[in-house]
Amino acid sequence: MLFVGSTEENPDIEYFSGFRAADPVVLVLRGKQGVLIVPELERGRAQNEAKNVEVATPQTLGLSPKERGSLSAWAEAGLKRLNAQAATVQPKLYVAIADKLRQRGFCLSVAKQPAFAGRAVKSLDEVRKITQAQQAAVIAMRAAMDIISRAEIDSTGTLRIRNKKLTSESIKTHLQKILLDHNCICRDIIVAGGSQSANPHETGSGNLLAGEPIVMDIFPRHLESGYWGDLTRTVVRGRATPFVRKMYQAVKAAHHACLEKLKPGVSGSTVHAAAVKEFAKKGFGPSKDDDGMSGFIHSTGHGVGLEIHELPSLSPSPRAGKLKVGNVVTVEPGLYYPDIGGIRIEDTVLITPDGWRYLVPCEKRFEL
Amino acid sequence: MLFVGSTEENPDIEYFSGFRAADPVVLVLRGKQGVLIVPELERGRAQNEAKNVEVATPQTLGLSPKERGSLSAWAEAGLKRLNAQAATVQPKLYVAIADKLRQRGFCLSVAKQPAFAGRAVKSLDEVRKITQAQQAAVIAMRAAMDIISRAEIDSTGTLRIRNKKLTSESIKTHLQKILLDHNCICRDIIVAGGSQSANPHETGSGNLLAGEPIVMDIFPRHLESGYWGDLTRTVVRGRATPFVRKMYQAVKAAHHACLEKLKPGVSGSTVHAAAVKEFAKKGFGPSKDDDGMSGFIHSTGHGVGLEIHELPSLSPSPRAGKLKVGNVVTVEPGLYYPDIGGIRIEDTVLITPDGWRYLVPCEKRFEL
Repeated sequence: MLFVGSTEENPDIEYFSGFRAADPVVLVLRGKQGVLIVPELERGRAQNEAKNVEVATPQTLGLSPKERGSLSAWAEAGLKRLNAQAATVQPKLYVAIADKLRQRGFCLSVAKQPAFAGRAVKSLDEVRKITQAQQAAVIAMRAAMDIISRAEIDSTGTLRIRNKKLTSESIKTHLQKILLDHNCICRDIIVAGGSQSANPHETGSGNLLAGEPIVMDIFPRHLESGYWGDLTRTVVRGRATPFVRKMYQAVKAAHHACLEKLKPGVSGSTVHAAAVKEFAKKGFGPSKDDDGMSGFIHSTGHGVGLEIHELPSLSPSPRAGKLKVGNVVTVEPGLYYPDIGGIRIEDTVLITPDGWRYLVPCEKRFEL
Repeated sequence: MLFVGSTEENPDIEYFSGFRAADPVVLVLRGKQGVLIVPELERGRAQNEAKNVEVATPQTLGLSPKERGSLSAWAEAGLKRLNAQAATVQPKLYVAIADKLRQRGFCLSVAKQPAFAGRAVKSLDEVRKITQAQQAAVIAMRAAMDIISRAEIDSTGTLRIRNKKLTSESIKTHLQKILLDHNCICRDIIVAGGSQSANPHETGSGNLLAGEPIVMDIFPRHLESGYWGDLTRTVVRGRATPFVRKMYQAVKAAHHACLEKLKPGVSGSTVHAAAVKEFAKKGFGPSKDDDGMSGFIHSTGHGVGLEIHELPSLSPSPRAGKLKVGNVVTVEPGLYYPDIGGIRIEDTVLITPDGWRYLVPCEKRFEL
């Protein structure tokens, strides 16, 4: 097996070797042998930190000065080091490297399965690391709910704290600092109010208003461990409109219905179907004039680990597969209507032999 | 031209379209036509934010439910949309997509040049954005110098603030918060003391000691603009050893020698050579028993923009090319000795018609 990339691009490399690299590295595995090729200036750190592999550099592999800057030359040298003429490669291997290696006579086949199926089944240590990040998310979420609940509503319906307008940005900055106190960062915290919240990936900006849904999605990454957490709540300062309240009740019911389904052996598509069914029951089924932007427009959940989105998937896809003990997944049904806004409730849970448990419970508050 | 990936993986997509996507998207360009294919749930946001392209989704392109989850199907539909049977692709295109498209009869050639040569030549607006991030780095750096200068030295030589040991981690957290106040984050701030600093990518941990070099490398990314800054200083609390002081003087001289060389038309390799020459003059030339881990072990600088490392490069590589007005580059010579530590001084500068200017000047302090 051949892996190329920074560990940000290719977390499998960090998963296997324990080595984190900001710049591209090459990992070649064959049987019980492994070689990790890092830039010369990373040699010391790699020798200290990398497990399960021999550490090499373009220099120790005897590459010419011209070849030292070429990742395909690194990959070729790594394959030769382990006497491999063929390799399974990751779907995301750079085409330039694949083309070069094939020209040089190597037979590459693209993996159809994840390189390390075990990545979706978390060890106790990994669960602990994800829990650390999730704990930070919960603490930040409570702080956000607290600010919004304390905000005053001015005559225009705008939220204010100590007479200053409360904005998405100010809440996000406050939450970032809380996350940092727990050694986590979240580049793209979502605090999106009103119609902004109708776009699930809109991070939010500007003044926040009373009576409108505010979607808060906090997915911190622990700076040390590199593991993520993921948590979403939707709140309204003051009273929601009847329709938004109905949306909220439906999302809460769908969230509950999904959790009820979670246990080992159940497929991700079954969990997703439970949300779809619950939404339909509450009057939020797919409409005939569906424009793809209204209603329940995303999948129900995803694995969380060294990547914020990883396996397993809780989605309608047949590839979603069956849940296993040790999976860590989000459960995050949501409803979105362009002119009104969105509602999403998300928890990150661990699949246990009996069913599931929250990594860190967080209360669901709505009208604050 | 075909581009695939999240905009984190493939900033060219954001550069061209102005659209930032956490999940993979597909961009196809042909002549003056462009199509950006985003997940259905991103359609609204993409229609609001993307420039220079038609926005499409798997649904609007008529893909079957099975194909909607396949990026190669997106890419194929995008190419067909623009009647393209051939495409130039990025070196980092996923091999799985390349293989599939070639099987389907498309002729793909891997680009030898950057897709947008203009990315290395910053517009005024881009310079402003990088300056914002650099300003945050300078403010954080001054705060770090201030803390270290105020630290007391206990009987073991350990630095203390209000009797509490001063650690790499505590400084980093403090700096992160300052960066956040300027709407920036830096996941991997380096505050590495003593022998840790001998590894250029070691981010640093534990107690900081008097008399040892502390390398501080702050490279914040502005959360809104997505542009980076990059700044490094090396300080010592108290007095450095004569050898470390000699290293510092050599690095400062090399830094100065590089800046003297900077102007349009000069090649990156010439600037790098100036650093190498200055180091040799100061007694830090390459040694015969060079283990690749001592001395000046990295290149002199890199472009900064939507990526922290981008073109142009100030390195010995012949591909380094010539500097142009509007390039924004770091100048960061350094010296590293495994048992002693490292010294690096780095500024980010703009190439101007007359030579260069600092984006944001930052004082060089050494013994604090």
